[in-house]
Amino acid sequence: MQNVVNRRWLLKSYSDGMPSLENWTTDAQPVPDPGPGQILVKAKWLSVDPYMRGRMSPSANYTKGVGLGEVMQGGGVGEVVASNHPGWKIGDIAESMSFGWQEWSVLTPDVFGPAGVNRVDPSLAPIESSLSWLGMPGMTAYFGLLELGRPRPGETVVVSAASGAVGQLVGQIANLAGCRAVAIAGRDDKLQWCREIGFDAGINYRTAADLTAAVRDACPGGVDVFFDNTGGPIHDAVMKNLGIGARVVICGRVALAGQFGKPDIGERFMGQLIVTRASIHGFLVLDWWHRREEALKRMALWQREGKIRFKEDVLNGIERMPEAFLRLLQSKNFGKQLVKVG
Amino acid sequence: MQNVVNRRWLLKSYSDGMPSLENWTTDAQPVPDPGPGQILVKAKWLSVDPYMRGRMSPSANYTKGVGLGEVMQGGGVGEVVASNHPGWKIGDIAESMSFGWQEWSVLTPDVFGPAGVNRVDPSLAPIESSLSWLGMPGMTAYFGLLELGRPRPGETVVVSAASGAVGQLVGQIANLAGCRAVAIAGRDDKLQWCREIGFDAGINYRTAADLTAAVRDACPGGVDVFFDNTGGPIHDAVMKNLGIGARVVICGRVALAGQFGKPDIGERFMGQLIVTRASIHGFLVLDWWHRREEALKRMALWQREGKIRFKEDVLNGIERMPEAFLRLLQSKNFGKQLVKVG
Repeated sequence: MQNVVNRRWLLKSYSDGMPSLENWTTDAQPVPDPGPGQILVKAKWLSVDPYMRGRMSPSANYTKGVGLGEVMQGGGVGEVVASNHPGWKIGDIAESMSFGWQEWSVLTPDVFGPAGVNRVDPSLAPIESSLSWLGMPGMTAYFGLLELGRPRPGETVVVSAASGAVGQLVGQIANLAGCRAVAIAGRDDKLQWCREIGFDAGINYRTAADLTAAVRDACPGGVDVFFDNTGGPIHDAVMKNLGIGARVVICGRVALAGQFGKPDIGERFMGQLIVTRASIHGFLVLDWWHRREEALKRMALWQREGKIRFKEDVLNGIERMPEAFLRLLQSKNFGKQLVKVG
Repeated sequence: MQNVVNRRWLLKSYSDGMPSLENWTTDAQPVPDPGPGQILVKAKWLSVDPYMRGRMSPSANYTKGVGLGEVMQGGGVGEVVASNHPGWKIGDIAESMSFGWQEWSVLTPDVFGPAGVNRVDPSLAPIESSLSWLGMPGMTAYFGLLELGRPRPGETVVVSAASGAVGQLVGQIANLAGCRAVAIAGRDDKLQWCREIGFDAGINYRTAADLTAAVRDACPGGVDVFFDNTGGPIHDAVMKNLGIGARVVICGRVALAGQFGKPDIGERFMGQLIVTRASIHGFLVLDWWHRREEALKRMALWQREGKIRFKEDVLNGIERMPEAFLRLLQSKNFGKQLVKVG
């Protein structure tokens, strides 16, 4: 496809603080041809997710960072336009976390696990759902809450970044599990949405006079499960309100995006952990990829039954990828941040 | 027993830093008579344990503090000298965490759980063992390591305060579970003892030039289980060396005894928890009291088979109770600190 252009976003520099538009550069290359066993996919939607912050650092995280000058990592979904793989034909819809911030991507279906390629059934849901509630963020909410949080009916589940891609699902799954769900978010309209989809209470962390007291008021029996997407002062306020036997799921630390890789200095809560016999669990959804089908089938069923609703925040055009990602890190998005590119 | 004297240690003042001898006062009262269903026990041995630091504070912990002017709480073992309970006769040996820092104690056998009274078989082991490896500290090591640490053969288990009452047992049980045990202690003779009883490596936290590097050198494959009795800088150094899927058991924080109740400010390790998918578990042995028999039977078997050895540090005379406790908080003891009183 030598006369068709593939616009791409390359990582130009690493960031040791809050990333900015200057960390990326764009180029236009001829659309590559798929090799043996590969498919060429034209993007329809691209995803931005908090984990990408970790890819903008040279230091080893759970996987290596993006190399300077390389296409920025990210998930996407699009249409197969050329196929050298017997299982894929032109017109199929393919989703992959290996897509990259680009309009066209050559993918290798015979890779298993998180780097692989997933078939998307467009009759089931809008295809962009495969980047949100019917994809990695959905799995994150499902396994993080149910397997690590282990909610019991009647318990209180607190969720930070509650209107975000993962948070809104955690609250709704908590309700399905018979729990009371408490949202923490930074805008009243976000909290209003959380109430609409079933959260039982909400806390605006930006306007609360005393966040620790606000959590205590919203959780008079203590916090049984804390699904933490943010870290930072919200984390602190909830940790001071743990109930006996509480489970804390550390899913993300978006509040610390501006100090990635630097020590996080603050109050440690080991005394509270002993007194409450609570536990803290670091969580990576990659560990649960072998159970992907289970999570997504159940999520699809719940959505068909009207038990799961989901809000997306869409920007248009691949030129807005860095902007979309920065919106996410700065909590300016409302719902799952996506970029429509095709 | 109006003409026999019961020497007691009463809590005189609460402490918001490192406790000192001035926090207690002693008196002498007539030995009390047991009421209906009660027994009178003459102490032979009294225990000092780190949890007692929490009883010297007016703030609510997992249980309330000792009231000012009340007998200081503590476990003891002794001989029944009067009984109004059909199950107990004069000459029986009774152990209880409700004993108190005193020579004579009226106990109520028909109380269940941690506050209750346990019968001690003097033919099984020296009776003071019921305050150490064949009692609460033994249960702490057994359940904390096996139930929360969940060691797997071939894993590396790091233990802080490794020559202490709990630590020396954790290392030996880790060996029995097929694990490599790494001791952290503050004196070379303590580490030498740890090597004698089976620890595979040792780190002197007082003399290590770089404690984090020392842990890394001793645990080249990462730390799989961290049984933490101390908190503080040792905690930090081990947290920086967690392996994938590590379990951290927070058993005690004796390094922070001088700042009890104050915020513990320092580096938080939530990023490491995500990257390693590790978990931190607050632990109170009280939660496992229903399985006391299992732990102690197994411990007795292991000791008979020569698989468990145990070092005690004994002071003589009830007048030395505060001194014994302060030795413990200041890491001056070598092995389980006991006071022989009868």
